[in-house]
Amino acid sequence: MNPQFLLSKLKLLTLTIFTLVLSYGVQASHPSLVITQSDVLEMRKAVIEQGSFATAYGKLKAKVDLQMALPIEVPVPKDGGGGYTHERHKKNYQLMYDAGILFQLNQDKTYADYVRDMLLAYVQLYPTLDLHPARKVKSQNPGKLFWQSLNEAVWLVHTIQAYDLVYGALSAQDIDSIETKLLKPVALFLSQGQPSTFNKVHNHGTWATAGVGMAGYVMDEPEWVEKALYDLEKSGKGGFLRQLDELFSPQGYYNEGPYYQRYALLPFVTFAKAIDNNDPQRKIFEYRDGILLKAIDTTIQLSYDGLFFPINDAIKSKGIDTIELVHGVALAYSLTEDPGYLDIARHQDHIILSGDGLKVAQALDKGLAEPYQFESVAFGDGSDGKQGALVIMRSQLAGDQALLFKPAAQGLGHGHFDKLTWQFYDQGKEIVSDYGAARFLNVEAKFGGRYLPENESYAKQTVAHNTVVVDETSHFNGDVEVGNLNAPTLNYFDTNQFGTIANGDISSAYPGVKLERTLALINLAELEKTIVLDLFDVRASAEHQLDLPLHYLGQLIGTNFELSVNTEQLSALGSNNGYQHLWLKGRGQPEQGLAKVSWLNENGRFYTHTSLVKGNEEFLFTQIGANDPYFNLRNEQGFIRRVKDKKQHQFISILEPHGEYNPGKEYTLEAESKLTGLVHGEQGDLTLIKITMAGMPYLIVVNQSADASTQHSFQYQDKSLSVNGRLAVYALNNF
Amino acid sequence: MNPQFLLSKLKLLTLTIFTLVLSYGVQASHPSLVITQSDVLEMRKAVIEQGSFATAYGKLKAKVDLQMALPIEVPVPKDGGGGYTHERHKKNYQLMYDAGILFQLNQDKTYADYVRDMLLAYVQLYPTLDLHPARKVKSQNPGKLFWQSLNEAVWLVHTIQAYDLVYGALSAQDIDSIETKLLKPVALFLSQGQPSTFNKVHNHGTWATAGVGMAGYVMDEPEWVEKALYDLEKSGKGGFLRQLDELFSPQGYYNEGPYYQRYALLPFVTFAKAIDNNDPQRKIFEYRDGILLKAIDTTIQLSYDGLFFPINDAIKSKGIDTIELVHGVALAYSLTEDPGYLDIARHQDHIILSGDGLKVAQALDKGLAEPYQFESVAFGDGSDGKQGALVIMRSQLAGDQALLFKPAAQGLGHGHFDKLTWQFYDQGKEIVSDYGAARFLNVEAKFGGRYLPENESYAKQTVAHNTVVVDETSHFNGDVEVGNLNAPTLNYFDTNQFGTIANGDISSAYPGVKLERTLALINLAELEKTIVLDLFDVRASAEHQLDLPLHYLGQLIGTNFELSVNTEQLSALGSNNGYQHLWLKGRGQPEQGLAKVSWLNENGRFYTHTSLVKGNEEFLFTQIGANDPYFNLRNEQGFIRRVKDKKQHQFISILEPHGEYNPGKEYTLEAESKLTGLVHGEQGDLTLIKITMAGMPYLIVVNQSADASTQHSFQYQDKSLSVNGRLAVYALNNF
Repeated sequence: MNPQFLLSKLKLLTLTIFTLVLSYGVQASHPSLVITQSDVLEMRKAVIEQGSFATAYGKLKAKVDLQMALPIEVPVPKDGGGGYTHERHKKNYQLMYDAGILFQLNQDKTYADYVRDMLLAYVQLYPTLDLHPARKVKSQNPGKLFWQSLNEAVWLVHTIQAYDLVYGALSAQDIDSIETKLLKPVALFLSQGQPSTFNKVHNHGTWATAGVGMAGYVMDEPEWVEKALYDLEKSGKGGFLRQLDELFSPQGYYNEGPYYQRYALLPFVTFAKAIDNNDPQRKIFEYRDGILLKAIDTTIQLSYDGLFFPINDAIKSKGIDTIELVHGVALAYSLTEDPGYLDIARHQDHIILSGDGLKVAQALDKGLAEPYQFESVAFGDGSDGKQGALVIMRSQLAGDQALLFKPAAQGLGHGHFDKLTWQFYDQGKEIVSDYGAARFLNVEAKFGGRYLPENESYAKQTVAHNTVVVDETSHFNGDVEVGNLNAPTLNYFDTNQFGTIANGDISSAYPGVKLERTLALINLAELEKTIVLDLFDVRASAEHQLDLPLHYLGQLIGTNFELSVNTEQLSALGSNNGYQHLWLKGRGQPEQGLAKVSWLNENGRFYTHTSLVKGNEEFLFTQIGANDPYFNLRNEQGFIRRVKDKKQHQFISILEPHGEYNPGKEYTLEAESKLTGLVHGEQGDLTLIKITMAGMPYLIVVNQSADASTQHSFQYQDKSLSVNGRLAVYALNNF
Repeated sequence: MNPQFLLSKLKLLTLTIFTLVLSYGVQASHPSLVITQSDVLEMRKAVIEQGSFATAYGKLKAKVDLQMALPIEVPVPKDGGGGYTHERHKKNYQLMYDAGILFQLNQDKTYADYVRDMLLAYVQLYPTLDLHPARKVKSQNPGKLFWQSLNEAVWLVHTIQAYDLVYGALSAQDIDSIETKLLKPVALFLSQGQPSTFNKVHNHGTWATAGVGMAGYVMDEPEWVEKALYDLEKSGKGGFLRQLDELFSPQGYYNEGPYYQRYALLPFVTFAKAIDNNDPQRKIFEYRDGILLKAIDTTIQLSYDGLFFPINDAIKSKGIDTIELVHGVALAYSLTEDPGYLDIARHQDHIILSGDGLKVAQALDKGLAEPYQFESVAFGDGSDGKQGALVIMRSQLAGDQALLFKPAAQGLGHGHFDKLTWQFYDQGKEIVSDYGAARFLNVEAKFGGRYLPENESYAKQTVAHNTVVVDETSHFNGDVEVGNLNAPTLNYFDTNQFGTIANGDISSAYPGVKLERTLALINLAELEKTIVLDLFDVRASAEHQLDLPLHYLGQLIGTNFELSVNTEQLSALGSNNGYQHLWLKGRGQPEQGLAKVSWLNENGRFYTHTSLVKGNEEFLFTQIGANDPYFNLRNEQGFIRRVKDKKQHQFISILEPHGEYNPGKEYTLEAESKLTGLVHGEQGDLTLIKITMAGMPYLIVVNQSADASTQHSFQYQDKSLSVNGRLAVYALNNF
């Protein structure tokens, strides 16, 4: 028997025991999902005292009161995302949930009646509905109230809680019709009505299982809870627990990246809380060594200046104040009482009206918050944590800086073909950027608010990222299935007083080509400066054209080599794989030595990218926007370093933040790069980079050996030096 | 005798009386310029108490102490703006001034000694200097320490104050060498050494007269004060008073616009304060009906969300926290005790260590600040206030909105060819934008930090603005001399509960062409919406091509008419007058009716521009950036409405802010324009605009008659209506 089979057997056994011992823990008392009766008692006390919880209550009440003054609208479904009926039904579940909470807190039956009336309106509507008219053709998961069942599951997650909250105020007759004509049919539609979605180990599956499982608790359908946990066949191959096993790495990183991680978080957090309240014996928060808490914490770590790192299909303005993470942080604080979470909660500035929300509010009121610690860390990818990694490097030496390095797995359908790409952030802004998703969420005029065609044709393509493109084709030839099967390898990650460094490689992005990159965020303590060191090695069995793009945000200040600029006419750089969307603005071929490109970011700082070139790298300057008939793309700038007919090439470069442009106060400091020397050498397994910065000679030592667990000593220019771990930096003047 | 002659006679007479009675008010006591001995006594008390003045003192002391720990550097002049010696000499005068203040406040002689040592270093250097090596060829006003004498005058304004502050601690010998070898030679160089600049009625002249006049007070050279006030010949044709007469309109508007107005302000404020302290009988603050106070107040009014409206050669990040206006606001508060100025001071967050600064600090500490009132106002232009006007319209109905309309005069050498242009601001952001100046201030790599060539070739040209271009040539054919002689006419300005409206025209921008524009910022109270109404009339004696550009900031969301987009290749739109810098991205020719263009600004709001067209207007979509070999321009978007072979045309349009895009919170509201009807008609002198907005019919009535001082009644669809003043808005449903 293979271990997988054993595991599922074991789960079935566990299940049987639960069945016998616990009667599934399903109880008739209400509310009993995320919010329990004892929570309610505490919260009722808090709303009549001064404090941020009472303030939040007052705000929500005012908002809901305004809405309740209007007639209830439960329209016949018609529109897709962003359209009126879509938005109305979304608003309705939120309203029912909020009114349900208010009823529990102030015991004013008006609120329960409002929820009841809306539920009864749905009771009238729902049985008349066929599949949604705006569903996608051949969709695997159409909804009835919404164009896709994902939204329907979200509706159920909220509505079942609202129902639970007002249950005590409903007549038996209303209970009967709400359950039999609305809630049970919705739960059945979302479970047995769409097995492929319900059983899928994917965030759509999480919403469905969360909704159905919670419906099981509330309406005394213990089988539904089991199915939610173990899949429709109770096989353990799908279901909520399998999702917890597979969707997160052991460190709590979610395969699709932070944008989807925070979205996926809400049903996990919600259903887990309901499980814990109903079946504490399942110890759901201890499951997989506390994976849920790790997932919440990782989501926070994957942010910069309040916004998530925009890898894969990410909309850039999404950040840690997102409602999903408000719930997540409340839970994390409730579980750990770690005061760092209060720092995040303070930034979120949103108290939720739940038992956990109350704990956060009271702790904030007591001033218990302490700074949350953002760290340099490599998040292993994949359910085993070994499908590459997403690496975050941070430094506070010269402003708040972060570097993201992505030797991470493909990340399923929302993943981008961007193996080994990087991003850089400084002083609150993106400097070396990632396009993110090409989408105007819910803006009907922009392709119905869905992902734009340019998301496929540009944003996902390799050239849209800061990593090597071979022969103008994307990684895995743009095939997501192949990508899902082939992750890069994280060879090492290390962080010490000199900075943070990581190395990753992948040999499957292109046949016969190995891509290997070392990236380091290095502290030059004496100068109170940080720099980024980037070594990108390409080794191939045949000759290729190699392009290494760098997308920067800002205005080009200048180059130290001549450019031939297309001033009268622009053409697209290529015809496929994203190249068709780049205007070629100019080109230059620097001579041997240091090739510099400088730009000025809106944060008022200058950035100079210096490449060590041998005269065979061409620099192509680009602007996004060609072949964009609907003006869907942002017209951002970049440059591509290109070499041709190469079996082997090493792109060596340093990014240097410097100076300040302050036209408001009329001063400009250090507008020019201070890097005057850059020499690359190797000595056994050591890579030695000698730089001269602001007149100071530095030696950067990278230990590339297979094992760097012990200190490594070596001779350099008659001096005995050593490197402990992967990285050392010597200020040579200090000898 | 003409009145001008009489006036100068009168001034000479006054002067003679002063000479006899006051001995010019020049006194031997120090300090006696901006800061007096009695100020010093109050300030000494304040720095040893708690409060924001003491905090500011502590901050300045820490900053200066750091600098004083370093060796004094007084380098031989070499670099132009932004270069090392330039910045060092700028830093030095500020340091001497600051150290001088600190000496007065804490009486620690170390600070006086530092100023003395630096002055003595200049005593060594200055006599050895010839004209600055980096001066412009054939420059009228080279400096010695700086490449232009403007900076040298600023140096003197600061240094003479520093000297005055430490005078009491200097030995007679040091006084002698500092005065005879440095300060007097500098003052002579800036006065008789460059008569054309000193006598010029221009901000360069103001700095020179301020520096020389203050030097006269401090070094007992009463003649210098007279020359500073009345010009080198004491004729009254130039000099400080003439500058007060001519550089500001009666409302205190400075001909070159707010960017230069705030710059010009500092020598006015500084010298005026010194005059008031030394010669109170001159009642300088009452001069020309309190023109200086008006100038300060107008500078504040010419800002939006803390930044100055960027008309003419303006760098956009300049705002009301600029040091010049910090001094201005301190003076304004000291003169008026108007608590609105404290609101501005609070925003500035910068307490200056002077007598006026102390008053502001103490008032802020007492919590006396009240909101400053930004108003809708037409600032008459020119010294008589009749050279057109700069019009600001504001509304708080639907967010903080401002509209700038510019039927203003050319504004000298920094003026743009943008007669009747407009700008629009909403929710803290520019929506309909002005390029401002093409310049990276002090960034050496960008054309030495000076105005870029693209400032002439693009930023100043008419097509870079939001106003009509005839036959692809700029206003006045781009001739600033012609522009300076021909101002537009402000025909009316009115503001009432319905909104704010103004009309201006000009017949001299193009021979045989009259341009007339009516702009209104209109409140639709019932909908809690505002809209902009724009009626642009062109009447010519011959047929012309007429272009009306609109430069918007944001991403194009869509048009309601078909576009033919250049997807594979872009070409420049034209070859001259700024057109060579615009890429033509696409074009469309909407049919008769409403032509809509929508965009999304980074503030998260949508904007729809609706034109009433007859099928003969073409829309050309552009992006800035063609013929830009050094990547000097920002790549912003716009569209140009074009009609050909027209003797007469009216561009009729409405700008409508609407909705909200919030991908962070995942909602999108009202992404589509609600304007469904727009009918334009005339009834005698009345322009009647009927619109339908969100299903609500409105009638907008504009009284275009020569005199609208009385109420005007009229019949409309069997109803008796009236308009009081220029503008009325009727919600037709309300009848």
